[in-house]
This record gives sequence, structure tokens and C-alpha cells, in this order.
Amino acid sequence: MSRTSRRSVLTFLGILGLCIATTIAQDRAGSTPNKGQPLNTKDISLDQAHAVLAAAVKKAQELKINQDIAVVDAGGNLKAFVRMDNAWLGSIDISIKKAKTARFFDMPTGEIGKLSQPGKPLYQIEVSNGGLISFPGGVPIRGGDDTVIGAIGVSGSTVENDDACAQAGAAAAK
Amino acid sequence: MSRTSRRSVLTFLGILGLCIATTIAQDRAGSTPNKGQPLNTKDISLDQAHAVLAAAVKKAQELKINQDIAVVDAGGNLKAFVRMDNAWLGSIDISIKKAKTARFFDMPTGEIGKLSQPGKPLYQIEVSNGGLISFPGGVPIRGGDDTVIGAIGVSGSTVENDDACAQAGAAAAK
Amino acid sequence: MSRTSRRSVLTFLGILGLCIATTIAQDRAGSTPNKGQPLNTKDISLDQAHAVLAAAVKKAQELKINQDIAVVDAGGNLKAFVRMDNAWLGSIDISIKKAKTARFFDMPTGEIGKLSQPGKPLYQIEVSNGGLISFPGGVPIRGGDDTVIGAIGVSGSTVENDDACAQAGAAAAK
Amino acid sequence: MSRTSRRSVLTFLGILGLCIATTIAQDRAGSTPNKGQPLNTKDISLDQAHAVLAAAVKKAQELKINQDIAVVDAGGNLKAFVRMDNAWLGSIDISIKKAKTARFFDMPTGEIGKLSQPGKPLYQIEVSNGGLISFPGGVPIRGGDDTVIGAIGVSGSTVENDDACAQAGAAAAK
Repeated sequence: MSRTSRRSVLTFLGILGLCIATTIAQDRAGSTPNKGQPLNTKDISLDQAHAVLAAAVKKAQELKINQDIAVVDAGGNLKAFVRMDNAWLGSIDISIKKAKTARFFDMPTGEIGKLSQPGKPLYQIEVSNGGLISFPGGVPIRGGDDTVIGAIGVSGSTVENDDACAQAGAAAAK
Repeated sequence: MSRTSRRSVLTFLGILGLCIATTIAQDRAGSTPNKGQPLNTKDISLDQAHAVLAAAVKKAQELKINQDIAVVDAGGNLKAFVRMDNAWLGSIDISIKKAKTARFFDMPTGEIGKLSQPGKPLYQIEVSNGGLISFPGGVPIRGGDDTVIGAIGVSGSTVENDDACAQAGAAAAK
Repeated sequence: MSRTSRRSVLTFLGILGLCIATTIAQDRAGSTPNKGQPLNTKDISLDQAHAVLAAAVKKAQELKINQDIAVVDAGGNLKAFVRMDNAWLGSIDISIKKAKTARFFDMPTGEIGKLSQPGKPLYQIEVSNGGLISFPGGVPIRGGDDTVIGAIGVSGSTVENDDACAQAGAAAAK
Repeated sequence: MSRTSRRSVLTFLGILGLCIATTIAQDRAGSTPNKGQPLNTKDISLDQAHAVLAAAVKKAQELKINQDIAVVDAGGNLKAFVRMDNAWLGSIDISIKKAKTARFFDMPTGEIGKLSQPGKPLYQIEVSNGGLISFPGGVPIRGGDDTVIGAIGVSGSTVENDDACAQAGAAAAK
């Protein structure tokens, strides 16, 4: 490698390092590690996941509906799931996909649906990631300091009811 | 696991148990088991599936069309299938997916299609469950007491004809 | 369709009907419906699934291990799932596949593994059904009258530990 | 294109034509079309598929077992299927894969299994074609003139019983 090209690489790396440092400072998760140290992250515990499920089930009971309810962790991986008796079989996959979608983009699934309509910026995003669900019922779960620690997905009724149960569930983790 | 975390898991399970017991008392399907007992359910027999297929084939013959016809059980699993001579190859998968979709949500597939159009509440639901079909031709099969015991899916002609054959098939199980 | 071919279809359906009627009379599950009636079946309730999960978690705690635990219903569809804190991510799918495999063939998954070794009768059966797991940790769940009402799958430790947790879980449904 | 290269193309096509003619003369299916004409093929009719299913069901009843039975056509596409009451859920996919495998290679599935063992010529062939089954229970169906017109796959018992039912079914098409 010539001295010139080496210098440009170093310059580049310097700039990149700066960018990364800035990025870290802006990190949503608020965990600024020392350089070379791993990120400090937060993840939903099973105890919290259970509280989330219980709150969503309670809401479903108040609404007199039967729901499929899934909770994923900060990595988007399934943490806990229940299907209430007589809830739809087709909602197993949908509730899990709603939870994953909400964590994949850290926003309620319905927000993605607004952007994925024909002519909109994220048209057909649903075919990615093995299938996303872009209608309401998936909600990020935030810990005490507002970090996203997982997500809940609910399916089995109207999207309004699904969202109400998901909101009730997510609120229980705070 | 620490004594504390073990206690929270057990506490959680207690709360969930309470919620679940309440749910069981509200069961839609009317089969309220005693606590700890399995649900009493009904499932389509091969004898019924055969009657369903025969009725759908008869309807297709009257309409002078050739159809693919699938029947799934209460668990959404394939129970019986026939492809009439010269019926479309592409309708094998569609008829099976129609039957599954109808059982997954206990409604005719065309009802889902009304809600999955752009701008509607279930837009793009078709990417879930390994592929749903949301146009007419899938119909739940109900037993004598109106319990859903399976579903029929028909494909190979217009959606009107497909639905007519599916309706004729489903009616034969009553 | 010509009159002749229509007649052969109807003749066939008559023959098949006869065969099916005989089959029903020999039904293993003991629920012999009247001709044209649905099968009377049993399915795991969420209350039971909860008891199964709690017993498997308790066993895992005694063994000081962290497990992924899945319960499927009589139709092989996911009913409930928990991943204990720090349990393997790769065991999410394995626990679910173990539960499904156990219900698909109504036997512990390890029994299938004995038959699927090179040179044995079921060699490579694992490629079917979207992926089966044929080592221990999946166990059918039987109701009070010994009917299979679902299955449990456990993954996250040695196959011996996985099987011990699955057995403990399945026993809780009786 | 130059005259020379055109001549070589024609020569090549001539040789290829000769090869094809020879191939056709050796065609297992025995249908030698005139040059430029499509192949005359034979395919299983639904009437035959029904006879195959009925014979396999009858054999299963004699053996007092419950089987999943699939019939595919000459193109390897599902033609008819029945799952006897209480037959294994996991055998739906296996019976269909057995039928496809038997038609894909025009031989009983167990023959492939002999060649797919560790160290043998077709080791791991099972991962192709979306999953093959290489143990007994899949058998080609031959028409009156010995042409392969489809295949049957049976699963739900021992491989010996599965094969006996498949053989009984295939024999009914002759």
C-alpha cells in the first residue's frame, strides 16, 4: 500500500471513528461504553414477559375476546406465548410476527402499515424478514428508562382490540 | 436461579393461572371443562370429509367445471383432497391454502379479502402463516351443533364458482 | 364430463364410502361416531398447558438449568411457550419442533431417533414436516383417559435433562 | 451468421436430431411421436386414483391400522389424498413426499434409501426437492402397458405395513 493510500485509509478510519463515537453518544439505548468495550444492553426478563402476558390476557377478558399473545426479547426472539382457549389458529403466526415487526423497527406495527400502502415509501415491506405484519397489534416494550427491551404482538380480534391488548401488555413492563 | 427470582416466577404463574381460570369460564365454544380437564372438542371424520368432497364434486359437475378440492380438520391439517381430471395444477396449493385460511380464522376466505385490501385493517395479512388465500373458495365446515370441525377449500374456476362448490361441500357435513 | 365418467366417479365414491364406514367402526381412539357425525375429541386447555409449563420450569430449577419449553395442542399448533432467562436462543425452534414431532407421531421424540439412524427404517425422516427433531425432549401429553391432547417439547440442556423436564411437564396434565 | 458456422449448426442439429430420435426409440414410455410432434403420454385419472386409494384403505383395514395415503400424477402433482381417522398428523407430509419421491425416480422409495446411506452413492439425496423420503411406502403406479402414470405414498405404520398398503394401492390401477 502506498504512503498516500495508507494516509487516506487512516484519515477515513479517523472520520469513521468520529462518526461511530458520535453515533454512540446518540445511542437511543443510552449505554455509552468505553471504546473497545461491549454495549451495555437491557433485555426483558421472563418475569416481565409474564407480567406483560398477564396484563394482555386480563384486557382480553375484559373485552370478552380470546387472543393469541406473543412476547419477543430485545433480540427479536420469542420469549413467551399463550393462545387463549378457542382463539384463532391463524393468529399464532400473526401474533409472533407482530411482536417481531414491532421490535425490528421499534415502533407500533400500525405505523409501518401507513408507510407500506401502494404508492408509499415502504410499499411491500411485508415480504421481508420472512413476513412482517404491518397492521396494529404489535407494540414495543420499554423498560423503566424507556429503552426498548422487547415487544408484544396480539392477534385474534379486531385490530383495535388487538392493539388495546398489546398496549395493556406493554404498559405492564414499566 | 435465586430464591427471589424463583418466587417471582411462581407468583407470576399464580396470577396467570387466575386469569386463565376466568377465561375458561367465558369460553365461546361452550365446552367449559372443569379446571385441569381437557377441552371437549369435535373434529371432522373421514366419512364427513368424503360427503363434503362428493357434494363439491357434484356441484362442479353441474357447473361443468373441473376443480381442486381440499378438506382440513379442526386443527387445520389436511384430511382429504381430490383434483378432478384436467383441473389446474396451480389450484392444488390454492385449494389447500383456502381450506387452511378458512379454519385459521373460522370465516369464509372472501371475508378476509375484504379487510386485506390497500388501506383496510388487515392489509397484507396474506404473507402470514406461510401464505394465506383471501379470495372466495374457502369455507368453514360446521358440525350439527355449529362447532367448526374443519374447512373446505376449492380452486379451479372463477371465485364465484369456487365459492359455490365450497358452500355445497360444507353444507353436506351438517 | 360424460355420463360414463360421472357414473364412475359416483361408483368410486360409493366404494370409498363403504371402506370409510368400516374404518370408523375400527377406530383406535374409541370415539366411534354415528355415520355422518363428527369425531368426539379432546384438546389441551390453556389451564392444563399452564400446569405443564409450570411443572417443567420447576424441574429445570431443581436441575439448575435454563430451558425453552413449548406446548402444542392436539392439532400440533402452538399453545404456550416460555424461554427461561439465559436459555439458548437456538432452542426456541428446537423445543417447538420437539413438541410438534411428539404429537405428529404420538410418541417421545427419542423413539423416532432410534429408528432414523443410518441403516434403520426411518433414516432421514427429519427432513419431513418442515423439520422434525428426533432426539429426546419431546413427549406427548395425555388427558385423564389416556387420549393424546397435545405435546411438550423442551430444549436447552443435555437430552437427558430435556427429557426429564418434558416428562415432568407432561405428567402435570393428568 | 457465416455459411460455415451455419453449416456446423445444421450438422450439430442433425446429430442432435439423430440422438433425440434414438432416445425416443429407447423411450421407456414407448410413445414415439413424429418429429416435431408432442409426446403422447399417459396420466392417472381420478377414477384410477380413487381405485388406488380404496385398495390401500382396504389393505389398511385388514391390517387394522390407520394410514395417510397420497396419490400423485405423472407430473408428480397431488391428485388425491385421504387421512384415515386417528392416523398420524406427521404422516400427511410423509405420505405425499413418498408418492412424489417414487414418481421423481420411478422406483419404490426404499430403493433410494439403499443408495442414500452414509458412504453410498446418493448420500443425503433427501435434502433435495424440498425433502425426499427414502424409506419404504412409496411406489410408482403403472398403467396397463407398464407406463408410469403416477405414484402412491403411504405412511402411518411400520415401513413394512406402509409398503404393503402402497403395493396394494398401486396394483389396483392395472
